[in-house]
This record gives sequence, structure tokens and C-alpha cells, in this order.
Amino acid sequence: MFNISRNRLVDLMREQGEIGATSDGGLYRLALSDEDREVRDWFNERMIEAGLETRVDEFGNMFGRREGHDPDAKPILLGSHLDSQPNGGIYDGALGVISALEFILSLEENDLETKRPVEIVNWTNEEGSRFQPAMQGSGVWVGAHDIETELAKTDTDGNLFEEELDRIGYNGNIAAEPKEDYEGYLELHVEQGPYLEGSGADVGVVTGIVGFSWGEMTFTGQPDHSGSTPMDYRSDALVAAADIITQVRRLPGTLGERTVGTVGYIETKPNSVNIIPGEVTVSWGFRDPSDETVQNSYIKVTNEAEHIADREGVDVEYEETMRAPSVNFAEPCIDAVQTAADKLEYDSERLISGAGHDATHLTSVTDSSMVFAVSREGKSHSPEEHTSWDDCYKAANTFANAAFELANK
Amino acid sequence: MFNISRNRLVDLMREQGEIGATSDGGLYRLALSDEDREVRDWFNERMIEAGLETRVDEFGNMFGRREGHDPDAKPILLGSHLDSQPNGGIYDGALGVISALEFILSLEENDLETKRPVEIVNWTNEEGSRFQPAMQGSGVWVGAHDIETELAKTDTDGNLFEEELDRIGYNGNIAAEPKEDYEGYLELHVEQGPYLEGSGADVGVVTGIVGFSWGEMTFTGQPDHSGSTPMDYRSDALVAAADIITQVRRLPGTLGERTVGTVGYIETKPNSVNIIPGEVTVSWGFRDPSDETVQNSYIKVTNEAEHIADREGVDVEYEETMRAPSVNFAEPCIDAVQTAADKLEYDSERLISGAGHDATHLTSVTDSSMVFAVSREGKSHSPEEHTSWDDCYKAANTFANAAFELANK
Repeated sequence: MFNISRNRLVDLMREQGEIGATSDGGLYRLALSDEDREVRDWFNERMIEAGLETRVDEFGNMFGRREGHDPDAKPILLGSHLDSQPNGGIYDGALGVISALEFILSLEENDLETKRPVEIVNWTNEEGSRFQPAMQGSGVWVGAHDIETELAKTDTDGNLFEEELDRIGYNGNIAAEPKEDYEGYLELHVEQGPYLEGSGADVGVVTGIVGFSWGEMTFTGQPDHSGSTPMDYRSDALVAAADIITQVRRLPGTLGERTVGTVGYIETKPNSVNIIPGEVTVSWGFRDPSDETVQNSYIKVTNEAEHIADREGVDVEYEETMRAPSVNFAEPCIDAVQTAADKLEYDSERLISGAGHDATHLTSVTDSSMVFAVSREGKSHSPEEHTSWDDCYKAANTFANAAFELANK
Repeated sequence: MFNISRNRLVDLMREQGEIGATSDGGLYRLALSDEDREVRDWFNERMIEAGLETRVDEFGNMFGRREGHDPDAKPILLGSHLDSQPNGGIYDGALGVISALEFILSLEENDLETKRPVEIVNWTNEEGSRFQPAMQGSGVWVGAHDIETELAKTDTDGNLFEEELDRIGYNGNIAAEPKEDYEGYLELHVEQGPYLEGSGADVGVVTGIVGFSWGEMTFTGQPDHSGSTPMDYRSDALVAAADIITQVRRLPGTLGERTVGTVGYIETKPNSVNIIPGEVTVSWGFRDPSDETVQNSYIKVTNEAEHIADREGVDVEYEETMRAPSVNFAEPCIDAVQTAADKLEYDSERLISGAGHDATHLTSVTDSSMVFAVSREGKSHSPEEHTSWDDCYKAANTFANAAFELANK
């Protein structure tokens, strides 16, 4: 076991947190923005200073490689993302990339060799705020998405992904795909949930990621005059939508201990105080560690929609827009994290991630797992996101020692 | 008693319905648009042909006057509006203006004199779609609104009311106010509700207009990650909004037989499938013939909002943006309409309007009442709006005979 440098970790976190900083202590660093370019330039300099051999692929994913002493050993990969939500925090993603860099700097400082090559990575556009989908760079890299399709995506201002990548100077000339087999992938991320804080743990050993069902339903009623239409003549699409929102709040309690359900999006037409809403579209999102429970959530919410539409006298159409199976991380990687936490005498908690991460995609090409750092009050995607420097250090130290074990296995 | 010309009424209705016609049989004739100019020009020509002395006031309200034989008698005023909703029908407003014109044409055709002068009017911007508020022209004319404030209003494209009025050539040079006392005001309008059709009546005798409370409430919760935030950690502003929408659907049944309640407008932030809504604003609107019931609706809906906010753990703020007392029309005017319907042997139904009309404002300066024409299925503000030519004729004939009685009283 060894310890990384707490001071250097904090300094690096503070430095990156100034790039795209907002006045309220948060971060505005959208993928392929000027701020993204600035943090990429900064990170590239740090990788070169650390002696890494850097490369950028044709989707903008940034890699830095440190060779091992066994020329035949498969490398390990460590990383996360440096882009942020429009009003995000300074820890989400960045703590994972900085921890990977700090691991390299600690190896250098302590003259530690590894058997395997170590690569660190900054994945392009994990957040999916400006260009969809989320986890885009890692998704392209593992072959889950077609690169030409993703390069042709536009943001809401009509800017083309490919042109923006070119504009910031990160359209590399190597293929966005694994060029060799990897021994494993480790990612450190803030939990973005309240479980670690609630259990009093120092660090989280992540064993998998929940599956989910996302979809949209549209209720169509009659957009009549709000004053002259008696209540019993109404087919109010917004009343039906309100009913399904209430059911999405209720259903998780009928499904599973870890099930969550959310309506995050609603669009109402004509959306005028004086007209009964004629058409309302709402999103749904259900997540659970069990794929069967996710399937049940889909069945239950669409059954409720049919019943609600019948009750209010409106029509309903629905479509599941995305279904993702749950992910089980690989035992060797989970064990490496657990062993590191135990040897460092940190209180650890095993948990399943409620949010998707780049590691989701990586499981399709190599063994993977994750380390979670404590999130204060579980807040994320917000300037209120916070992880104490102690918790950052403990998670990064666990991550570094787990990576060291994998790199020498 | 006399009969108006059914054929001429239908021809005039069809002619005006072609100005701003949409391909689905509806009308797109927003206040102060090119289409509004065209229908105003057409109406002005018809008034001149009918021998009327025309004038336009500084707010664009258009008048036509036919003198009576008693130089000391107060005039009567007849009219409605020619502007439409963005996707309105051809009857709303227009049938009232055309019926007033047809009354004049029938007097001319039958060489009928009246004791009192008769004025017909097309009020500017009754609909309130492009410039707010609704019933703007009549409101300015009776002094309910300050004319300088209203001339300075802008539409969503930033166009100034005053400049648009100038552009279409209807900024008259006479003051927008009554220059003399009036004996009474009569307005014909389509019901926009289902009561007449439901009762099988030929025509409606309108005795008043409901009062209403309009307002907005904003729920503020926590915009957390939809995947990693357990259900019991959530303060979901959209769940609270859904609850109040459900209560607004339920409350009328606890208040009164004629009470209606509607949430027509909702705005959600950040409105993303993957984030728990942090801030949601909804409108409310309650109407009832009893002012006490309207007050109770305000008390009940705000009590519900407080309770709901407490249950979901969110904050709520609310504001009543408009309160209008109910309107009771004047007995002499109601009687004139009732007598005309009875003498014509039409089945009539006495009812209270659920929608506001220009007549609402006119009650503050003169005795007023209204005639309602049957609306098929109560539909309005929609291309599906329909009144059969028979029902148009019966309502217009009732209106003309009531106006004739008032004009000779």
C-alpha cells in the first residue's frame, strides 16, 4: 500500500474547478465549449508533465499512457470525464480524471513501476447536456454508437458536433476504438446519492449500475374554453398528465426497495391560462437494479396511463424511448477496490449506482468497476454538489491502490 | 315584429369567414394583423353601403351610426368583435358584429325608422391572444384601462400595439370614450358552452356573466439527479404541481353547480427527463356566478397548495393575478331579449355566461345584456366551432327584434 498526495490532489481539483467556474462555486463547462477546450489544454499539459504519452482519438477522447515492465501484459484503463452540466459542480467527473492523474503522479514520485501499462482517459461528453446522448465518447469508443451518427449530432443552437470538436482542436487522427485488449477499467466518481453519507461510510465499492426504462406519453383531449365548458364536458389532457405524475411518484413503493421513478419533462399545449389543455406530453424514467423490476415498472406505468386516459376521456399514446439493462461489475475489479479500502482501514459500503457512468459502456469491452466518493446530501448536477477534501482523498487513495493492484496482477 | 334576411346574414357570415380563413375551416385573424385590417376594411365598406355614419376612435374601435327620429333620445349600441384566436372559428365575435349590421340592413330594407339613434361597433382586440388583456378595446372605451398603458403593450415578437394600429390604418382621431349617454348595449355571441344544445333551446337569454379568480402558484423543490436520488430524499416540484392540478379538477364539485376550475398553464424547470423538477409554476382559474363561491375557490385552492407543499417538502408561493366580480345584466335589456324570443316563438333558455365578453365592460356605462347562439358541442376557440345557419338566424332575429324594441322605447 501507498498513499497519494492529499495536497496535490486538492490543488489539482481546485485548479480544474477554476476553468468554467460560476460565481456560486459551481461549474459551467459544456462538452466542446471554450471552457472544455481550456480544461482539456490544462489536462493535456499535466499529462505531458507527468511523462505520459498522450493521444486524442477522432471523437476527442484524450488518453495518456505510462508503460509497464512486462511488454506482453494487457494495460489497465482509468478515467472519467471533465465536462459538466450547465450548472454543475466541480467534483462530478473531474474527481475521477484528477484521481487517475494523481495516481500516475504518485507512481512517479515514489519511483513505482507497474507490470502492466497504465492508461488514463478523459471521455468526451459524458453529461449529454449539449449533445445527446450522455456517455457519448465512451459509447462510441466501445462501439455502442456509430461514430458518423454521433459526429453529425447538433446542439440546440444548430452547432454540429464534428465542427465544434474541430473548433476546439480535439479531433484526433486515431480511431475511436480499443486498439488492444485491456485487463480492466476503474472509474472513481462522486456518488450523486445519499447512501454513503447516510451509512457513515468513507468510500463506496460499486458493484453495478441500475437498469432503466425511459419513455414518453402524450395525452390528447379537447382544448375548450376554460370558462364556458362545464366540468363534466371536459377532456383535460393536463389532468390526465397530473394523474400519471402522481402514479410515477407512487409506483416505486410498489416495485422495489431501490426503485425510483421520475417525471422530469412536461410539455402542454396550448399552455394558456384560459384554455383547457388539449395535448400534454410527459416523460417517464424508472430505475432499479433488477431488470425484471424495470420491466414491471414499464408494464405498470403504461397500464396506469390507459386507465387514466379512460377516466378523463382523453387518448393516450406512449413509447419507451430507451431501455438499459442493469450492469454487474466484474468480481476481480470489485475485489481490488474492496481490498484497497480494507487495507487502508476505510469504512466502505458496497452499493449499486443509481446513475449511469462511462463504466457502463466499458463493461462491454473489459472487466470494470467503480469507486464512489461521498456526496454531501446526495446533491449533484448543481453548484451545491460537495465532497469534503477528506472524502475526495479517501476515495482517490482507495482508487489508486486498487489500480496499483490491477496494474501488477 | 319583423324578420331579418336569413340569406343576407349567411352571405355576410361567409364573406367575413373568408378573410383569414384556414384550410381546416377555421379563422386566423389576430388583432391588428393584416387579416384584421382586411376584415375591418370590408366591414367599413359594408357600413358605408348601409348608409351609416362611420367613425374610428384612437384605440381602433369602429362605430357606425344611424340616426333616430327623436333628436333628444339616447342611442343604443350593438356589437361585438371581428378579431379571432390563433386557430379560432368563424362565429366567435363575428356573428355579433354581422348581426348588428344585418339589423341595420333590415331596417333600411323595410324603411323602418327608430326613435333612438342606433350605433353598431366592432371592438378592438376582444380575444387577447396577441396583446393582453382580452376585451381590451371595450375596456379602454369604458375607462377600465388607461389608454396610454394599453397603446404601449407589445406582442411576443416585440411589436408595439400603437405602431400596429397605425400600420393597419385604424388609429382614429376621436377619443376612445362614450361621448354621450346610451340607453343600452346588446351583444350577440355564440355560447361557447354546451347548455343551449343540451337543453334543446333555439336561443339563449343571457342574464349575467360569472365572476372569476385567476392566479399563479410556484412550487420550489430540489432539482436532484433522477437516478441516484432515492424516493424518500426527494422534493419534487412537479409532483406537488400534479397534486394541485388534481385538486383543481376536484374542487368545483365541492363548491357549486356552475363552478369550473382549470389549470391551463404549467412551466417546469429544468424540464429534463433526467432531473427531478426543481421549480414548477401553474396557473389557476375558477369561475362561478356567485362572488362568494369564487372567494371560496381562492381560499380552498391556496389551502390545498400549502398542504401539498408541506406533504412533498417543497416551498410554495402564490398570487391571485386577477379577480373579477360577477356581472348581472340589466332587467330592461334582458326583458327585451326574452320578449323578442317569445314573440318569435323560439324556445329560449336563460343562462349565465361562463366566458367574459365586451358586454362585461359595457355594464359599467349603460344597461346591457346578451343573446347567445347555440354552439355545437360547446366548442369554441377552435376550427371545430360551429353554429348551424338556422341557429345563427334565430339568434340574430331575436337580437334584431330586441334591439328594435330598445331603439323605440
